[in-house]
Formats: sequence, C-alpha cells, structure tokens
Amino acid sequence: MLNVVQAIILAAGKSRRFKTDRTKLIEPICGQPMILYQTKLLDHLGILTTLVVGYQKELVQESVIKEHENSISFIQQFEQKGTGDALKCTRHLWIRDHILIMNGDVPLVTETIIDELYTHHIDSGAPITFVISHDTYQVSEYGRVLKSGLTVRIIEAKNDDRKIQDEMCCINAGIYLFRKDFLIDFIDKIMPNELTGEYYITDLINIASDNNLLVQTVNVPFDRVRGVNTQEELWTAEQIKRAEIIKAWMLEGVRFMAPHNVYIDHSVIIGKGAVIGVGVHLLGKTEIGEYTTVGSFSIIINSIIGNKAIIKSHSVIEDSVFHQESLVGPFAYCHRDTILGSKSVIGAFVESKNSKLGDMTKAKHLSYLGDACIGSMVNIGGGTIIANHDGQDKHKTIINNNAYIGVNSSLVAPLTIEQDAFVAAGSTITENVPTGALAIARSRQINKPEYAYRLKNKKILKNGINSSLLFESPFKASSVSSV
Amino acid sequence: MLNVVQAIILAAGKSRRFKTDRTKLIEPICGQPMILYQTKLLDHLGILTTLVVGYQKELVQESVIKEHENSISFIQQFEQKGTGDALKCTRHLWIRDHILIMNGDVPLVTETIIDELYTHHIDSGAPITFVISHDTYQVSEYGRVLKSGLTVRIIEAKNDDRKIQDEMCCINAGIYLFRKDFLIDFIDKIMPNELTGEYYITDLINIASDNNLLVQTVNVPFDRVRGVNTQEELWTAEQIKRAEIIKAWMLEGVRFMAPHNVYIDHSVIIGKGAVIGVGVHLLGKTEIGEYTTVGSFSIIINSIIGNKAIIKSHSVIEDSVFHQESLVGPFAYCHRDTILGSKSVIGAFVESKNSKLGDMTKAKHLSYLGDACIGSMVNIGGGTIIANHDGQDKHKTIINNNAYIGVNSSLVAPLTIEQDAFVAAGSTITENVPTGALAIARSRQINKPEYAYRLKNKKILKNGINSSLLFESPFKASSVSSV
Amino acid sequence: MLNVVQAIILAAGKSRRFKTDRTKLIEPICGQPMILYQTKLLDHLGILTTLVVGYQKELVQESVIKEHENSISFIQQFEQKGTGDALKCTRHLWIRDHILIMNGDVPLVTETIIDELYTHHIDSGAPITFVISHDTYQVSEYGRVLKSGLTVRIIEAKNDDRKIQDEMCCINAGIYLFRKDFLIDFIDKIMPNELTGEYYITDLINIASDNNLLVQTVNVPFDRVRGVNTQEELWTAEQIKRAEIIKAWMLEGVRFMAPHNVYIDHSVIIGKGAVIGVGVHLLGKTEIGEYTTVGSFSIIINSIIGNKAIIKSHSVIEDSVFHQESLVGPFAYCHRDTILGSKSVIGAFVESKNSKLGDMTKAKHLSYLGDACIGSMVNIGGGTIIANHDGQDKHKTIINNNAYIGVNSSLVAPLTIEQDAFVAAGSTITENVPTGALAIARSRQINKPEYAYRLKNKKILKNGINSSLLFESPFKASSVSSV
Repeated sequence: MLNVVQAIILAAGKSRRFKTDRTKLIEPICGQPMILYQTKLLDHLGILTTLVVGYQKELVQESVIKEHENSISFIQQFEQKGTGDALKCTRHLWIRDHILIMNGDVPLVTETIIDELYTHHIDSGAPITFVISHDTYQVSEYGRVLKSGLTVRIIEAKNDDRKIQDEMCCINAGIYLFRKDFLIDFIDKIMPNELTGEYYITDLINIASDNNLLVQTVNVPFDRVRGVNTQEELWTAEQIKRAEIIKAWMLEGVRFMAPHNVYIDHSVIIGKGAVIGVGVHLLGKTEIGEYTTVGSFSIIINSIIGNKAIIKSHSVIEDSVFHQESLVGPFAYCHRDTILGSKSVIGAFVESKNSKLGDMTKAKHLSYLGDACIGSMVNIGGGTIIANHDGQDKHKTIINNNAYIGVNSSLVAPLTIEQDAFVAAGSTITENVPTGALAIARSRQINKPEYAYRLKNKKILKNGINSSLLFESPFKASSVSSV
Repeated sequence: MLNVVQAIILAAGKSRRFKTDRTKLIEPICGQPMILYQTKLLDHLGILTTLVVGYQKELVQESVIKEHENSISFIQQFEQKGTGDALKCTRHLWIRDHILIMNGDVPLVTETIIDELYTHHIDSGAPITFVISHDTYQVSEYGRVLKSGLTVRIIEAKNDDRKIQDEMCCINAGIYLFRKDFLIDFIDKIMPNELTGEYYITDLINIASDNNLLVQTVNVPFDRVRGVNTQEELWTAEQIKRAEIIKAWMLEGVRFMAPHNVYIDHSVIIGKGAVIGVGVHLLGKTEIGEYTTVGSFSIIINSIIGNKAIIKSHSVIEDSVFHQESLVGPFAYCHRDTILGSKSVIGAFVESKNSKLGDMTKAKHLSYLGDACIGSMVNIGGGTIIANHDGQDKHKTIINNNAYIGVNSSLVAPLTIEQDAFVAAGSTITENVPTGALAIARSRQINKPEYAYRLKNKKILKNGINSSLLFESPFKASSVSSV
Repeated sequence: MLNVVQAIILAAGKSRRFKTDRTKLIEPICGQPMILYQTKLLDHLGILTTLVVGYQKELVQESVIKEHENSISFIQQFEQKGTGDALKCTRHLWIRDHILIMNGDVPLVTETIIDELYTHHIDSGAPITFVISHDTYQVSEYGRVLKSGLTVRIIEAKNDDRKIQDEMCCINAGIYLFRKDFLIDFIDKIMPNELTGEYYITDLINIASDNNLLVQTVNVPFDRVRGVNTQEELWTAEQIKRAEIIKAWMLEGVRFMAPHNVYIDHSVIIGKGAVIGVGVHLLGKTEIGEYTTVGSFSIIINSIIGNKAIIKSHSVIEDSVFHQESLVGPFAYCHRDTILGSKSVIGAFVESKNSKLGDMTKAKHLSYLGDACIGSMVNIGGGTIIANHDGQDKHKTIINNNAYIGVNSSLVAPLTIEQDAFVAAGSTITENVPTGALAIARSRQINKPEYAYRLKNKKILKNGINSSLLFESPFKASSVSSV
C-alpha cells in the first residue's frame, strides 16, 4: 500500500453544527484530538498524507504538527466550495497511483477498513472503491447509496425523507479510494450543486456510473464510520472508543467497579490486579501500578502511581509521581511535580505542589506543602502551612530526614529544617532549625479564671438583653460589673 | 381553546405506592415539583384550571401557589371515593363548554398532546375524547382500551393478566376531554365499583358506548403519558425529562463529558462552548457562562458563573456569583452570597460564606472566609481563618485592596485591614491594621539545640523501654540523664 | 430436601481468565465474596455442603469459614484434572441419596432454581437432572445441549463455532443433581478428554444417554446461571445483583436521584423517605435512617446514620455512628469510631477520627479532631487541630460541655478543657483549662506603620529591579534608602 497510495484528509470544514465557533477537529476524544485518530492511523500504515485545511487552520495544523512534526503536509482551501473543490486543490500533489480520500471527522475508522478497501480496490481494478454502511440508526444526514445492476448512485438525503432512508438503507461513509488516472480525467466534470453551488466528490460516483465505469463498495459496520458533526455524535464516538479501551484493560486483569462510569484516555497504562473505583478519571500519560487501588471520584492526570499504592476517594493528582505503597487521600490534591517516596502518606485535605517527600514521610491532615523538599520519615503535623510565597517571590523549604513538625505550624520559606529537628505545635518558623534542635515560636499559655463567664456576660449586657440571661460562674467569685 | 375549555387536575390521591408517607405530587423532577409540569402547561395554554386536592393538600397547594399565585383554584375532595367522585366535587365550577380532565401525575404531557386532543374532540363533535397509548412496556396498572366497531370500553387490568395485556395493548392514559352537557347528563350514572366501592371516570366511557354515543381517542407515545406512581416511575420520568434538557443544550454547543451522567434542572442556562464534566449537578436558577468549564463532580446551585471561568473538580457552589475568568477549586466550597470578582481565585479546601472578593484576589489554600468584604488584588495566605463568630454574634471583616495576609493567620472580626497592609504569617489579628502597615502578632522563634533528642529520650525512658533505643545526639554534647 | 441431598461446590479452579493471579471466588459482589452467594443459599436450604478447593485454597476457605464457621467442609483437589476428577475426590463423602453439584462461580442462582431442579429430579426419578438455559447472549464458552428423542448430549463449543451456537442455543449451566447410585456406578467411566487430558462431569450425561438412562433438564433464565470467568462477567453479575437491591429499596420508599449510578451492598438498610444522591456508595453494614439525605458523591461504609440527618455531598464516613438530625459535610471525613450526638455539625474540610461529639456540638470548618471526647454544645472554631500524636504516642483530649474553642487553635493532648471554658483564637493549648476560664496563648498584636511598603521595596531593590517600580507610601514618611 505504501508506495501506491496517498491520502487526502478533508479538514477544512466549518464545524457549523458543533455550535461552539471552534473547529470540531481538535476536540479531544479519550484525550486525543479527533483529527489525530486518522492521521496516526495513516502514519501507522505508512501512507503519505495531506490535510486540506481551511477553517481555523492554525489550530488544526498545530495539533497535527505536535504529533507528526513534518511528516504530514497541508494545503489550504481558501473558499468553502465543497468536497469536490477541496479535492481539486490537491491536484498538483497527486504522486501515487491511488488517492485515498476521507473526511477528518471519522475517528473510529480502523486499519482493517483501510486494508479491506485497498484490497478490494486493487483486486477489482475499479477506478472508484468506496466505503458504505448499513445505517440502522437512520441518521438522515448521509448520502444514500442506490445500486442498480452494475451502476451505483448516491442520493443526498438532506431532505429528511424517511421513505428514502428506509428503502435505501446503505449510506456513503465518505471514504473513497480513487485511481489517480480516473481523477485526472474526471475531476473537472463535477458540476456545482444546483442548490448550494458547491462541488461534491459524490458526483464522481454518478459520473463513473454514467460512463459505465466500475464502482466498487466495501460494507463496514456503521459504528466504525460514524461521522462527528454534533456534540451528541462526539459523545457517541467517545463512548465507543472508551468502551474499547476499558474492555481491553479488563482483559488484562483490571477490576473496574463501574466500567460504565469510568473515564480513561487512550494513552493510559494500568497494571493487573488494579482496582479502579466509580467515576475515576485516568487521563493523559498516566500509569497505574499493579494491585494499586484508585478510590471512587478520584482524578489522575499525567501521573505515575507505583505498585500496591492506595489512592483513596476524592483525590486529584496531576503531573505527579508516587512510589510504591504510597497512601493518599481521601481529599488529597497533589499537583505540579509532587513526588512521593514509597510508603509515604498524604492525607485528608492536604495539598502538595512542586514538593518531594521521601520514603515513609507523612502529612496526614489539612496541610499545604508548596515548593518543599522533604526527607524520609518526616512527620508533618496537621494544619501545617509552608509559606512559599512572600507576596512577590517563591522560595524553597528543605526539611531533612526524621524531622517532626508540630501541628498548625507555619514554615516561612526560604527555610531549612535539619534532620531530627522538632518544631513545636503552633510555631511560625522563619529561621533555619539545626539538627536535633527544638524550635519553638509561640507564647506561653495563660489561663484567666472565670474569664469566659465574664466575656459572655459582657456581650449579653452590651446587647441590652435582660440580665436574667447572664451566666453565673459556678465559683460565684466575681461580679459582672467588675468586668 | 381558551374560552371553551377548562381543566380539572386530579391531585387528591394518597401516593400509597410511593411509600414515603408524603404526597408524590411535590417530588421534584429536574428541580420542579411534579405537579407544576401540568399546571404550567395549562397556564401556558391559557386554560382555566382547578385542582382537586385532598391528601396533604396544604403541601400541594403551597407548591402551586408559589408558582401561580391565585390563577389556579382548588377544591377539596373530602373522602377518597375515586376519580368519578373527585370529578363530581367540581360540578359547580363547570363554566366552559368542555372539561379537560387529567391526573396530577403525568408530568411529561406536552402541548402537542393537548392540542391534538382538543382538535380531534372539536372536529369529531364527540362527547368524550381521550388519550390512549400503545403500552410496549406492559405496565400492568393501566386500564386497557377495547375497541369494537364504534364502541369503546375500558377494562381494568389490575388482575395482572398478561393475556389481557397482550391482546389489548392500548391503555387509557387518563386524559379526557368531555363535553360539559354530556358530563351533566351522565355523571350521576357512575356506579360504585363492585370491589372497591369507589367511583371511576372510566365508567363514563362505557356509559357513552352503552348509549351509542361517540367516543373518540387520540393515540400518543407512551413515554409522554407515563404516570408516576412509584419511585421507579419517578426516576424514569426524570430521566426522560433530563435527556430532553441535555440534548437541547448540546444543540446549543455545550460539551458534556458524560451526558448520561450529568444532572441539570429545567431552569438552568448554559453558554455555548461551555464544557461540563462528569457527574456535574447544575441546579436551580444557575447560569453558566460561555466557554466556562465545570470540572467533574462539581455541584452548582442557584449561582451565576461568568464567561471563561474555570470551576475545577469537586467544587460546591451555592447561591453565589462568580465574574468572568474566575478560577475555583478543586475542592472549593462557596455558599450563601459569595461574590467573586473577575480573575479571582478560590483554591483547594477553601470555604467562602457570605463574602465578596474583588478582582484578581486570591485565597488559594485551606482557608475559611466568612462574612468578609475583600478588595481587589488581595492575597489571603493558606490556612487563614476569618473568625466571624465570637460565640454569640457574627461580625464583618473588611480587607482592602492589595493587602497581603500571611499564612495561618486568624482574623478576629469585627476587623478592618486597610489597603496595602501586610499581616505576618501565623498572626492572630484582633485590631484594625492601618494602610501600608505590617501587623505582627506572634512570638520570636527560639531554637533549643539538641532538645529534640532529649525529648525523644525522655519519652523512651518514661515508657520504660530499653535504653539501647535512646537517640544519641550527633554532637554528643548532653547526656540523657541530665534531661 | 434436607435429608436426601448433599451439595458439592467446585471451587478449585485457577481463575485464569481473571488475569489477576488471584482466585476470583473471593472477589466481592455487592460487598460479599462471590463464593458466599452459593454457600449461603445452600446453608439457607439446610443442605450439607462440601467445597472442593485447590487453587489458593487458603483464601477461599478463610472467606467461607468467616461466614459459616464449621458447617461447611472442604476437600482438596491436588491436581487440576478437570471437574470429573474434582467430583471423584469427594466420593468418600457421599452420604446422601442425591448429590447436587455446581461450580463456585454462579452467584446469581436462586432458591427457586434449586427447588425446581430437586422437584423435577425426584418426580422424574432420573439418575441425572441438570440445569440448562437459552443463551440469548451467545456466550461461546458454554457446552451446548443437544436433545434428540430421549437422549441428551453435551457438545463443548470451545471452538467458537457460531453455527453450533445458533443451532444449539441451549447451554449447560453446570448445575447437576445426580442419584448417588448412578454416580457410584459410572464415575469411573469418565475418560480423559482427548485434547486436554482432563476429566469432565459432562461426560456423565453422554454416558447416561449411551446407557439409555433418562437425563432430565430444567430450563431457567440465563441471567440466573451466568458464570463469572472474566472481569466483564463479574461486572455483569454485580450489575444484576445491585439492580435487585436498589429496586427493592425503591419499593420501600427510598428516593434515589440516580438509581443507575449508586452503589449499595447487600447488607445495607435504608429507611423510608431517605433521599440518596448521585454516585453515593453505601457499603458494608451501613444503616441509613428515615428521611435522611445522603448527598451526591458521598461514601458511607459500616456506619449508622440516624433519622432526619443530612449528609451533604462529597463526604466520606467509615465505621461511625451519627445520631438523628446530625448535619455533616460537604467534604467531611469521619472515620474510626466517630460518634456524633444529635443535631451536631461536622462541616467542610473537617476530619474526625476516633472522636465523640455530644449533642449540638459544632466543628464547622477545616479542623482535625483526633482521639477527642467532646461534650455537648461545644463550638470548635475553624482551623482547630487536635494534636493527638506527639511523635511517638497518641493521647486523648477531653473538651467538656459548652466550651468554646477559638479559630486556628492547636490543642496538644493529653489535655482537658473544662466546661464553659473559652480558648482564644490562635492559641496553642498545652495545659488543662479550668471550668469557665479563658485560655490564651498568643502574642499581642503590633502594627508597624508603613512597614509593608518598606518590605516590598526592599524586595524590589534586592531583585535589582528598576527603582521606578518602588512603592511610595501614601504618607510619604520614610524614604526607601532608610530601610
């Protein structure tokens, strides 16, 4: 196929029915821009590919170049004058014997379909071979295929005529393989459509039939050639793609608590024996280790989680690496290059950003760790805040092995807390703490006897409330008036 | 229709099969009490409407009056003696030529059905026209419609006889249009049911047939006339209603990551290009701006979110207003009149209640903002708590533009922090802070060398553990016995 | 049935297609290990039961013994030589007249099926009666049943031959009732399979037919006899089981906002009028009171929630008891023996562990309550952390009735705060606080005028930025150079 076929992807359309004023071609499906499903398929088959771009071409090109660098070429269709016109724009690029044409919005097409199309095309020697499908869903937008003896015609069914749909239930999937010589001979015979004034590729099929040239078809399941024109069709395509991904991981020994309610990108890897909870999102380049548990409603993006880790429910993890047996959540938020050592713990309502924790280090409750480099066996007390930002700049905090940070501490960066140091609860630490030292920065406690009663009564009096509501101290020591 | 039809809604029933000891008629469907779907439809058609109420009539009336004020009248059925008896109760109110009767538990009925029923009724001149449906789901509770020549009879299928259901697959949907003169002549002919002693409207159909009077039917899709008698039927009705709402927003250019798992009330508005995550709830009078993103598992109730805002996952927002490009969550909780200026940030584990933040103000981590009025460009450090409650009263806190609140601060209301002021980390602020001042309320840090080792050893000794476990200071400066 | 039937459950298999290197038999389905669905059914029917174990027999036995103690016996199949061989291993245990044999992986089998099988077996007097089903799903793994006159044969369809499946659409469900005398006579006639060398029970059916012995079948719905061999089949079985559980609770008057997206174990109890939100998990031995609301995305495990309680969204509750009208969440995390008194409140971003709160006590924001015993009417200010761990040991904190803890307090255990005491905001409390006393442990606030401007300018100068960026104090009191 390599040396005799080249591909043209029609990617210039306006995505009108998408209604977002943005090209649909870069909408992600399971984490990958729609257009890349086709460009990667053709790339994988080694087929020289050209995209005809137009509407928001910068966005489309950017997505394609990010994946393919320079291996795919672009040509611009300046005016939206139909698929036939788009094809004409590429005429000077036809260097192979056969030209494969497809729309940019059929992301579910498989290698098998292209193979079958090619084999049938070559075997039959037909100038045109194209993909058709039995449309059991009665989607009215597709051109209907009418076969009569050896001739094949396509009738645009835009008039929403159920009768036509029922009688002609095969649709044109918009994937064609043309012999180049046929195209050269006939492309200029396409006439503008009476209603729209546009030029349609489908005319070439009618032209071929008119000229008694053989037109061949390959019939494939509709789900494989669904076009994505609306938000609803985008969802349908993504559901199909996602179901494939999830079934494949089930076969590898992953238990999903709710396979119908889990969101996994095409680029994710999951180890056997992993248990994935309800509603979990595994997105981007995420890897989940073997026998690791991801609790319900957790979202993991571009992160690597080691084996036998436990991510409890309602945790959000982005761009992070957790080593084996780490224990995270519920309600943990780790992002921007958080690195957890093995058996380390990030607990409830703890946020970690750009921080590294060594092995067996724990931050179990209500803490913020920002720009910190923390050793092993460190204990971060609940309510600890690492103040990495002074209003203008961000600074680093270093906490060495085996240090103990008391609850509700504030650590003001830049700061180094050395090994085995101990920070007393409620301290605001602004200076480095030496190895094994105790740092304390808080006031001594004073208990003022009965003062709580006085405070309450003071307020009651201030509010002008009846004095019968006043609290009486059980000690009867002080009168209210003395407050 | 306006001047010749009046409507009676039967809303007196006991909701027995609902099993909650509460009337089902006020159960919300997509955020609206079930009964209102019908009252609002009739109101929209300009049809004079009376509700026959009985069981928990206060609850039903309260819901209806809240929506319609005095435009709908009520009449009480004192005893539950069947639909025929309920109809009789309204006899003195019949002032139009035709009486439309429907149950209060068919929330999916559309304008089209009423139109069609009316047109057919008027055109045919029949004394009775009623709605039937082909029950493909074989729901056994419906009366079966038996047509034979011109006569129409209804057979109660309560005996759960599958055979009857198979043969007579059309059911009586319980929506009737009667000529008033027919009703006046025949309503007293309804006899009590042999088994239950109750009077049924369905008898009027059999009576008409017995008297060789024309009975007409209008056949509509079953999904439109589903009755809601059980929790499961309530769910089904809500699923149908919700699917309509979601499909409509998809056509407007909203991307739902999981349209099958999103919960949107009928009163919500969503801008084009918005992206709505998995499991999101958009409830009450909520508006979502254009190109705004709502992350998975977020719940937004009665709130207005501006354009291009980003609500990250797991956020809960109630009765709040966010201006454009605000950035919220994950794990944010904004409620009771929180107002966010444009480009302001509420981050992870931050709760805001009855607080206003100006433009570009940030509270990024683990804070509670209660009853605060905060200016623009303010930075609230992580762990900040605004103490709005002193044990008896609530007070306001004012923080002016460009102020900087250090981490783990406690701000004790009533309090004003002026523009450009700086509160040092870990401070408890009880007095106002002037413009540009630094407020500090914490102790100086003391480092006690090697004290951490001594503390540990003291505990080890106290626990009576073998002294070989004692920590040795790397400085070897102090002996344990001296602690 | 009791005295004439005994059961053999085949539970020795390798779970190869499960791909987790662990026996599938203990995978939970709606919270119960798969194997227990059958052992509990047989136990309930009073049938003497033996499990043939092999692969990971310790795990299987442990699960069974935990439920049944010593009422079920085990026998080990040392080599995996097929179901026929497994049956042979049990020969010395045959003490009843009829032997019921089933695989351990058909958790959806009901009492009705066993009853029907038994009745048919006894009535017909056949030596073999077994369960068949019409496989509408065309699952290729099942042996196909071929009836011809009185003979019955089973054809293994492992060759994935669609034609065989279409023609012989009845499958062998693997549930047999044998007369003991038949088994004794014929068990040694089973020959090893030509391909696998293993011995199959299915051979006995062919052998019976060869000997002109009557073979009887009982036809049941496929969903009841589905085997669980893959992750996907496990999910299917769980979906069926869960739908049963949820439908049953709906009939009891529980409103589920999304019955299709809620996860309830078989052991859960829910009161009428309860409202269960989207995605909620109710797991283990959980009880939900009447008219209690559980908000979306909340997870409740092994906990008892009283009547009229409100659990808001995104809350995680494990091993806890909440009394009536308690108000919890959103974003609450209560675990390990948290006990809440009636009308008590645990608010947003609050974690409670092994703590008891009295009636009407509140901890509304960003707190950690660990190992605390808290009385009634206590108010715990936002940001309070109870430091129960001193680096080595855990200690208790006692807070008596009506005490008031100011915001951002740190309470260092062991500690007692007596009744009516008041802890000032931002205090670190290390010593007991007497009744009615005010405890304060913080520094007095100092405001340094214009210092905030100086700090900013200092940083700007340090960063070497153009001095035109320097802040000018509105008081123009101090020059920058003097900083």
